[in-house]
Amino acid sequence: MRKSYLLTPGPTPLPPQVRAAMARPIIHHRTPQFQAVLKEVGEGLKYVFQTSGDVYILTSSGTGAMETAVINLLSPGDTALTVHGGKFGERWTELCKAYGITAEVINVEWGKAVDPQEIAKKLKANPKIKAVFTTLCETSTGVTNDIAAIADVVKKTDAVLVVDAISGLGAIDLKTDSWGVDVCVSGSQKGLMLPPGLAFISVSAKAWGLVNAAKSPRYYFDLRTAKKAWESTDTPFTPALTLVIALNEALKMMREDGLENIFIRHKKMADATRAAMKALGLELFAPTAASDVVTAVKVPAGLEGEKLVKTMRDKYGVVIAGGQAELKGKVFRIAHMGFIEEFDIIAGISCLEKVLSQMGYKFELGKGVKAAEEVFLK
Amino acid sequence: MRKSYLLTPGPTPLPPQVRAAMARPIIHHRTPQFQAVLKEVGEGLKYVFQTSGDVYILTSSGTGAMETAVINLLSPGDTALTVHGGKFGERWTELCKAYGITAEVINVEWGKAVDPQEIAKKLKANPKIKAVFTTLCETSTGVTNDIAAIADVVKKTDAVLVVDAISGLGAIDLKTDSWGVDVCVSGSQKGLMLPPGLAFISVSAKAWGLVNAAKSPRYYFDLRTAKKAWESTDTPFTPALTLVIALNEALKMMREDGLENIFIRHKKMADATRAAMKALGLELFAPTAASDVVTAVKVPAGLEGEKLVKTMRDKYGVVIAGGQAELKGKVFRIAHMGFIEEFDIIAGISCLEKVLSQMGYKFELGKGVKAAEEVFLK
Repeated sequence: MRKSYLLTPGPTPLPPQVRAAMARPIIHHRTPQFQAVLKEVGEGLKYVFQTSGDVYILTSSGTGAMETAVINLLSPGDTALTVHGGKFGERWTELCKAYGITAEVINVEWGKAVDPQEIAKKLKANPKIKAVFTTLCETSTGVTNDIAAIADVVKKTDAVLVVDAISGLGAIDLKTDSWGVDVCVSGSQKGLMLPPGLAFISVSAKAWGLVNAAKSPRYYFDLRTAKKAWESTDTPFTPALTLVIALNEALKMMREDGLENIFIRHKKMADATRAAMKALGLELFAPTAASDVVTAVKVPAGLEGEKLVKTMRDKYGVVIAGGQAELKGKVFRIAHMGFIEEFDIIAGISCLEKVLSQMGYKFELGKGVKAAEEVFLK
Repeated sequence: MRKSYLLTPGPTPLPPQVRAAMARPIIHHRTPQFQAVLKEVGEGLKYVFQTSGDVYILTSSGTGAMETAVINLLSPGDTALTVHGGKFGERWTELCKAYGITAEVINVEWGKAVDPQEIAKKLKANPKIKAVFTTLCETSTGVTNDIAAIADVVKKTDAVLVVDAISGLGAIDLKTDSWGVDVCVSGSQKGLMLPPGLAFISVSAKAWGLVNAAKSPRYYFDLRTAKKAWESTDTPFTPALTLVIALNEALKMMREDGLENIFIRHKKMADATRAAMKALGLELFAPTAASDVVTAVKVPAGLEGEKLVKTMRDKYGVVIAGGQAELKGKVFRIAHMGFIEEFDIIAGISCLEKVLSQMGYKFELGKGVKAAEEVFLK
């Protein structure tokens, strides 16, 4: 019977409008009624992606859109550049390997952003690199990479820039067109305030050149088929249409708020969360490139990280995320993204204080909440 | 403001329990709460698939599960057998081609079922055929193939039998294990009474042998990854979890009804629909192998098929399907599958009578409905 407070970096909480939309009777997808929705959604996605080009809708997890990027841009034997610095950067390399593409890897210490000059150096050293695969927000470490600076580097070359913006799109700034992001992929369950199940991909004119030449085998994720269907406001296969209808509601909310206001709200929540952690004597995992969508915090010495997360969730209904892969048990992560607002953050910090206190961590009760309140009051 | 009556062969209408489940606040997928759902869903899927093996859940359209079957069983250069006789049978061939697999094709006249002996002949003539790709119910023509007889043929060979049961599973009988279906794929938006967005796949021990040896490139749809994750009640990537939670509700309903009763209900609706069409002087498109999930009916000479479907939908809110591909304008299709029941069929037939009458087709008003009532009364 416990109320649940969801503060995880995907899925993020659903607005009531989105939930209500999914509960409506279903309609058929090859009708003028659904085409009207697709048209609106298409415009809304362009707004959120900050692009004038079409954004294609895939029925898949975000990883499906990442695979779409890899197999539509490259052929077996091609070379790509990937950046490791967290679990999701590594996924680009795994995808390249699965499709016989050589990945040159830049290894970045987990918790740090990639230096755009490292990318410039690699591109100069190996002109065979056809695509650079990067991550907007590395959810596993709470790091945001400087995509604008990376784009400045890549656009001077023949390579295309692909950004995994699954975490971050619609929450922090990503100017697809004006920065020069060739392919931007995202998912539904983060900044877009939907359940998981939809993924999205934008494709620049430069990238279309590669798509038309790429020889990787593909069918379900073939962008040429998606483009052809989209020209008559359709999708190649039956889409997850309740999610598309719900997406229309979420996009309407976002357009009403305006991207600028949304970005300010996310930054404020992030600042408040970071201030609270410092006030509690906790250490940020990524102090130099901290993301405005999720904050990773080091588990204090002597405390069990997994127990902290479990107690908050199972005893008090406040759901934050633990560490993934090599960070398991070493960090916890608080999301401030999508349909999460000021007082949700306060609730999350309060619960963290309660459980930290119960676990014997020494600090002055209320200090974290107070620090956050001070940021929000500004 | 018009009420809508959905009688399309996917999506099919959603039960209120399913709609309510999707409107619940979202939960995180890596929690004991969601794992409990996954466990129940896993059992429910085994029941519906009539298999003791695991059924894997994919976040994709049904076509994603078809692609999963092709790329996990076969390698480039392999040979497969496919059966054309409608749009969905042809999709198997397109998938094989996309992945460099040779498809030997059996051409069946649209509206007819494949003769299992044709499959036996082909398998005998070419022992290199590693997989036979078939369709339970060819939604585009309203034909059901005799999968039991086909399985009898295939199981005597080294080839595996793959059945596209996207349309039909959970509505008409398909005994995966006892018939000897090696790989069965399905989707959420037909007999399972959910929105589109999830797909499913079962894999026999014989098929696992091929999966482990197959050399087609794969990542998102890699069954080896799905199996590994499922062993710890997980999915490899963030699943469309609101749909999984809704699926649990649908599967509970199906277990309460019992498969036998569900099959009887579908057969009765199909019989009633077919009787009504005959009573109206209309001709079935597939009289010899008519499916119990969707009835395809020839548009009477002199009438515009697309106008008939549009008028029913846009003027009266009764949504049936037109013809696909080469059948465009030549047939209309009435679904009797999933959460469609007796009086929905009556409503659909009544609306059909109304529009046929308005379009100048000569028949005795009420005769179709009466014929259906007679079947239902039995």
